[in-house]
Amino acid sequence: MVTALFSASTERWDAFKGPLEQAFEAHGLQVNLVLEATPGEVDYIVCAPNGPVQDFSPFTKLKAVLNLWAGVEGLVDNATLNVPLCRMVDSGLSEGMAEWVTGHVLRLHLGMDTHILGQDGVWRAGRIPPLARDRSVGILGLGALGQACAQALCALNFPVSGWSRSPKSVDGVTCYSGDTGFEQLLCVADILVLLLPLTPATHHILDATALKALPKGAMIVNPGRGPLIDDAALLAALDVGQIGQATLDVFATEPLPPEHPFWAHPRVTVTPHIASETRPSTASQVIAENIRRGEVGELLLHVVDRNAGY
Amino acid sequence: MVTALFSASTERWDAFKGPLEQAFEAHGLQVNLVLEATPGEVDYIVCAPNGPVQDFSPFTKLKAVLNLWAGVEGLVDNATLNVPLCRMVDSGLSEGMAEWVTGHVLRLHLGMDTHILGQDGVWRAGRIPPLARDRSVGILGLGALGQACAQALCALNFPVSGWSRSPKSVDGVTCYSGDTGFEQLLCVADILVLLLPLTPATHHILDATALKALPKGAMIVNPGRGPLIDDAALLAALDVGQIGQATLDVFATEPLPPEHPFWAHPRVTVTPHIASETRPSTASQVIAENIRRGEVGELLLHVVDRNAGY
Repeated sequence: MVTALFSASTERWDAFKGPLEQAFEAHGLQVNLVLEATPGEVDYIVCAPNGPVQDFSPFTKLKAVLNLWAGVEGLVDNATLNVPLCRMVDSGLSEGMAEWVTGHVLRLHLGMDTHILGQDGVWRAGRIPPLARDRSVGILGLGALGQACAQALCALNFPVSGWSRSPKSVDGVTCYSGDTGFEQLLCVADILVLLLPLTPATHHILDATALKALPKGAMIVNPGRGPLIDDAALLAALDVGQIGQATLDVFATEPLPPEHPFWAHPRVTVTPHIASETRPSTASQVIAENIRRGEVGELLLHVVDRNAGY
Repeated sequence: MVTALFSASTERWDAFKGPLEQAFEAHGLQVNLVLEATPGEVDYIVCAPNGPVQDFSPFTKLKAVLNLWAGVEGLVDNATLNVPLCRMVDSGLSEGMAEWVTGHVLRLHLGMDTHILGQDGVWRAGRIPPLARDRSVGILGLGALGQACAQALCALNFPVSGWSRSPKSVDGVTCYSGDTGFEQLLCVADILVLLLPLTPATHHILDATALKALPKGAMIVNPGRGPLIDDAALLAALDVGQIGQATLDVFATEPLPPEHPFWAHPRVTVTPHIASETRPSTASQVIAENIRRGEVGELLLHVVDRNAGY
């Protein structure tokens, strides 16, 4: 019998308990899934970074920490955590993210807000937008989420470029990497989507210099992490028209305080960290598969590189 | 030398003259493209239904009428038109339509308006929507436009059903036809997209009975033709919550009068007939190809069935 401690909010417990137990059974595992346990008896911790367990040192028998979310900041630099830490790579999360990103890229591409916000009886026919094939989308970050978004946007004929720290190859996507590649991607991104992990190297990666490298009037979609963007630099770039519009789902402080200038800015759309979330049914399969692997000594999936930070 | 008369607004002439001349040259055709001609000398009329030519009887040498738009209502029942009438099937129009429909289906699916219209400092986290794979989309009309939209929506994992008058088969789409099929499609359409031609048989096809057959709270997107919907029945269905939201791009009267209740209705979004339009560069290729076919005696493309009305 394996003991797995669930360390997240009771709301998450309600959502995950059933799906996890089903997934364990489907994987042929006997798991005692609990909210409380004697630390020395715990084999695995299923964990949210902001969950009750912050000191891992009493868990002397611990085999791995299985994160419920894609982001691991807050866990990756926990000095008491000395066993493998696994990120969540959830197909439901990726699907939801691809839908949200594709929806908002199309919204910006089509200029929908003119009409959604203009239901005042004025027939604003104006100009038809270019076709997607004439609108270039750049994606910062080519992990599971970035790739899912790239694929969905390619299917709609958007020319898609992607950037990652180390070189990658993704079907149908013009791939850039490294510092030079970063500048090359920015130059061609009419719409820029941020899906990088937050690490010391990506903190404020979209600063004044990077914003200036984008085509004039470029549009930004950030469902990644708030501190990827230097907020003051973004507001300045919006005010001079260098950036045409920004749709931001994540922020340095969440909820975004009501007095933050993003709320009132006519060309910023704030959404409340809803782009996507881990779905219990699919995520539970990933956790069960990792426990199965741990028990038979196979390599765990999605182990975090503690030096890289993701 | 072939003579082609251009019968549409001068604005269209400015947009189409260059692309048409380039397309004729690319097809190896010698075409005298003119705004005025002696009727007896005209071989082809490139035509908007509301263009200056309404009486085709003086055009004694006429070989075909090549419509600039997808819709042919206003031409199809013109008794003076006794030569083949060709619809426009423009890849640019289809691409633009697929982008507009996919964008608005995703907008409704994701509930974007809550946030676009709610930039007031209130963090409305609420519930994450279901995945696309759990939201069924029904498309009325499986012509070139309906098929392009179906394909784009399938690529995003939406379960897509389609309906056409006569049976059709489209990859990845659950296809219905006929009267029974119409009711079957309505029952499963969480989001319904209207892309039917306007004919006596499709006039008010979405009436009170059809609206009642949709799942409670269904959402409607109409980029087809205004009179496909019985407006009074739609308003009544919106008011009792049978229909959750409607995004309407086309209307019985355009521009939609400012006093029309659609403008003020909190769950209706009016857009000003912008879903898609014929793109001169791609449409000119279709017209040139049909003139080439006409000149060598090959079958013309997209000839309208005058009895069916499309």
